[in-house]
Amino acid sequence: MNNKDVVETLAKTLSCATEQHEFEQSVNQLQDLRPIDIADVLALMESKLAWQLLERLSNRSTIFSYLEPDVQVAMAHEFPRNIMAILVGEMPADERTDLYKHLNQDQRDALLPALAQAQREDIRKLSAYEERTAGALMTSDYATLSAQMTVAEALHALRLEAPDAETIYHTYVIDDERRLMGVVSLRVLILASPNQAIADMMMSTVVSCHVDDDQEVVAKTIARYDLIALPIIDNSGALVGIVTHDDAMDVASDEATDDFHKSGGISTMVGKLKDVSIRVLYRKRVFWLVFLVFGNLLSGLSISNFEEVIAANLVLVFFLPLLVDSGGNAGSQSATLMVRALATGDVVMRDWFSLLAREALVALMLGATMAVAISIIGYIRGDAVVSLVLALSMMSVVMIGCVIGMSLPFVLNKLGFDPATASAPLITSVCDASGVLIYLFIASQFLSI
Amino acid sequence: MNNKDVVETLAKTLSCATEQHEFEQSVNQLQDLRPIDIADVLALMESKLAWQLLERLSNRSTIFSYLEPDVQVAMAHEFPRNIMAILVGEMPADERTDLYKHLNQDQRDALLPALAQAQREDIRKLSAYEERTAGALMTSDYATLSAQMTVAEALHALRLEAPDAETIYHTYVIDDERRLMGVVSLRVLILASPNQAIADMMMSTVVSCHVDDDQEVVAKTIARYDLIALPIIDNSGALVGIVTHDDAMDVASDEATDDFHKSGGISTMVGKLKDVSIRVLYRKRVFWLVFLVFGNLLSGLSISNFEEVIAANLVLVFFLPLLVDSGGNAGSQSATLMVRALATGDVVMRDWFSLLAREALVALMLGATMAVAISIIGYIRGDAVVSLVLALSMMSVVMIGCVIGMSLPFVLNKLGFDPATASAPLITSVCDASGVLIYLFIASQFLSI
Repeated sequence: MNNKDVVETLAKTLSCATEQHEFEQSVNQLQDLRPIDIADVLALMESKLAWQLLERLSNRSTIFSYLEPDVQVAMAHEFPRNIMAILVGEMPADERTDLYKHLNQDQRDALLPALAQAQREDIRKLSAYEERTAGALMTSDYATLSAQMTVAEALHALRLEAPDAETIYHTYVIDDERRLMGVVSLRVLILASPNQAIADMMMSTVVSCHVDDDQEVVAKTIARYDLIALPIIDNSGALVGIVTHDDAMDVASDEATDDFHKSGGISTMVGKLKDVSIRVLYRKRVFWLVFLVFGNLLSGLSISNFEEVIAANLVLVFFLPLLVDSGGNAGSQSATLMVRALATGDVVMRDWFSLLAREALVALMLGATMAVAISIIGYIRGDAVVSLVLALSMMSVVMIGCVIGMSLPFVLNKLGFDPATASAPLITSVCDASGVLIYLFIASQFLSI
Repeated sequence: MNNKDVVETLAKTLSCATEQHEFEQSVNQLQDLRPIDIADVLALMESKLAWQLLERLSNRSTIFSYLEPDVQVAMAHEFPRNIMAILVGEMPADERTDLYKHLNQDQRDALLPALAQAQREDIRKLSAYEERTAGALMTSDYATLSAQMTVAEALHALRLEAPDAETIYHTYVIDDERRLMGVVSLRVLILASPNQAIADMMMSTVVSCHVDDDQEVVAKTIARYDLIALPIIDNSGALVGIVTHDDAMDVASDEATDDFHKSGGISTMVGKLKDVSIRVLYRKRVFWLVFLVFGNLLSGLSISNFEEVIAANLVLVFFLPLLVDSGGNAGSQSATLMVRALATGDVVMRDWFSLLAREALVALMLGATMAVAISIIGYIRGDAVVSLVLALSMMSVVMIGCVIGMSLPFVLNKLGFDPATASAPLITSVCDASGVLIYLFIASQFLSI
């Protein structure tokens, strides 16, 4: 149900019905939808009406979890503290912590005392981890077994844990200090005979991440090993949480968005484009734009060194944007390839030199093709000498552009920056400045002043 | 085990050991690794040695599935046809079909007769679907139940299907015509009492995709509904396959790479950057570069209309690349935001106008900031009039750039193109041409010829 019109129409219909207290009918209309679809509908309704519907739905905590934090907070005002505590108590631990982080101090003070002791403790622990780490991503709703159990005991334990655990399909075997000993899948459990010991059937080499690992590492690990869930351990090797495949998919998407934005010269931005304020949009974009204004002064300085040759051959100005852009375009192609390959792990630092050789060859071919194109135009518009100057300049500009474009992401990476940082505009500016210099230098060698 | 050095060292050690027929020791070194890690090691070894190890490993078909198709094909030469048939027979249906597609006719003719009838039929069906559709992505290794079964019967059926099914955690309930009736999770099954009927406990509103749906739709559906697997149906509503969460994650990553490349002006490219041939790299990049050379002629034509004002005020050339680039940079920021928001579904076509108003406001703020910066430089380098011309031009160029940058992805989308298509270089060129025109027009109004 991804169609916004359907969602809007349903939200309107239900708002009317709820206002007239036709709750049963409204609930019936929603009952068959998926929780996330219901959340989309509720998000478009007035908080008060949405709450009146939500409290009548059987899986309300799941639906509530799917709402954006600001909608959750707005809705939280509508219902009594004790009901809110029940609802929040039923939420998955990671979603609950996210909501908690979005509350102001007053709201937190109102909520916390109403929660159970274990939940308060859980929120305190989970919210302490730094943003964008495994710790901030993980949930504490997971099922564990001990190695001494039999299969029958394990299945019994899982039946008890199932209602609260995010997944029971992979269960982690821990010792008395909660150290991660192994993993066993439900598939293996239901195929085994009831008296087998867990110790004999668990896989004892477990892929895990550390609680301080970057969320990108977590997402990549889950993708690489095709995991349903990834256990997260602390310094002592104790299991402290799990990250599930669906969260990993969201992280991968967010990280791709982030790289995409960065390569376009936009600083890291949290939230959906439509929800971001104009002030934030301005702030996230202005830095690189102003920075590049000053960067582009370099191009201007190159030009001022060649004012005489320009004055004597105004036709050069005609081709200036074209030549300069071509270098930038070729360079940003190279950078785009490198930035993405570095991000997906297809390419690592030490591939630089072997890739450089290949890139130079590709650039030579691209430059030659473009030189032919521009020399024809140059001959029509100018003369044979202009045509030659243009062809030589194009070759050089494209070659230099490609080499800069493919090297800059590696250099940024080496210096500890994200290779995606402003790659497109930064490389365009660097390539432009060198393009201007090369073009006017070559022109000054061939053309009279 | 993502460290390339470790993998290389292990591959070397194992190659030596295998050459000296120390198989048992080698197998022991690999036994504890994950299948994909073993595949990475084997991929670096000579086909013959790799095969000698592989045939001694217990989960060889899983490991073999993780190898790249060209390595699989190379290795396939090393082992007898009957062994190959067993290995291929044990592979998951979707991986088997991928391998089949990479074989040439001779290899196919050699392989097919050795396979079981059902597997041949399966390959024939799965390989018939168009690339990048749900059909090409799905596997036929899934478990089904009928609505009349009791929980006990269902669990018994699952135990029989478990060894072959990609997942038994979500099982699909079908009728006699294989039409999809519902879905039931293993979690629900093991919590239920043995005599309950599946019909009473299954969820009858099932999220599914059509076999012809684009793979991007499949990945987005799995992400949206946090699914472990997504059932794929044909025109008659019959279940024909499933796509699992791990495949969806790979698709999402590939689609992001694709958008990333496209927005940098590189046509869709299949395979890892390191493996792509120089010829392909050239071909995928040359089109947009040459296209943009001709596109940039527009900038040149604008310039030739203002040759007199340039000749009389050479200081204008000094600022030309700077002004022109600023418009392009601002425009490509806007385009980057829109392309990604359209790709993730955060923004849809009809949001255009509301976003345009916001974008205009942000552009006004950005333009004003940059106008201040450039007018200072202009005053130092030129005079008050030049400073004014630059400030006005900067405002206009940034405004126009942002409006073009945010609108072009929508226009491309409307025309049926991927909004990511060459967004960065295309928008840079369009913004450049309009930037040159605006700048020189404003200059000609204020400066003497």
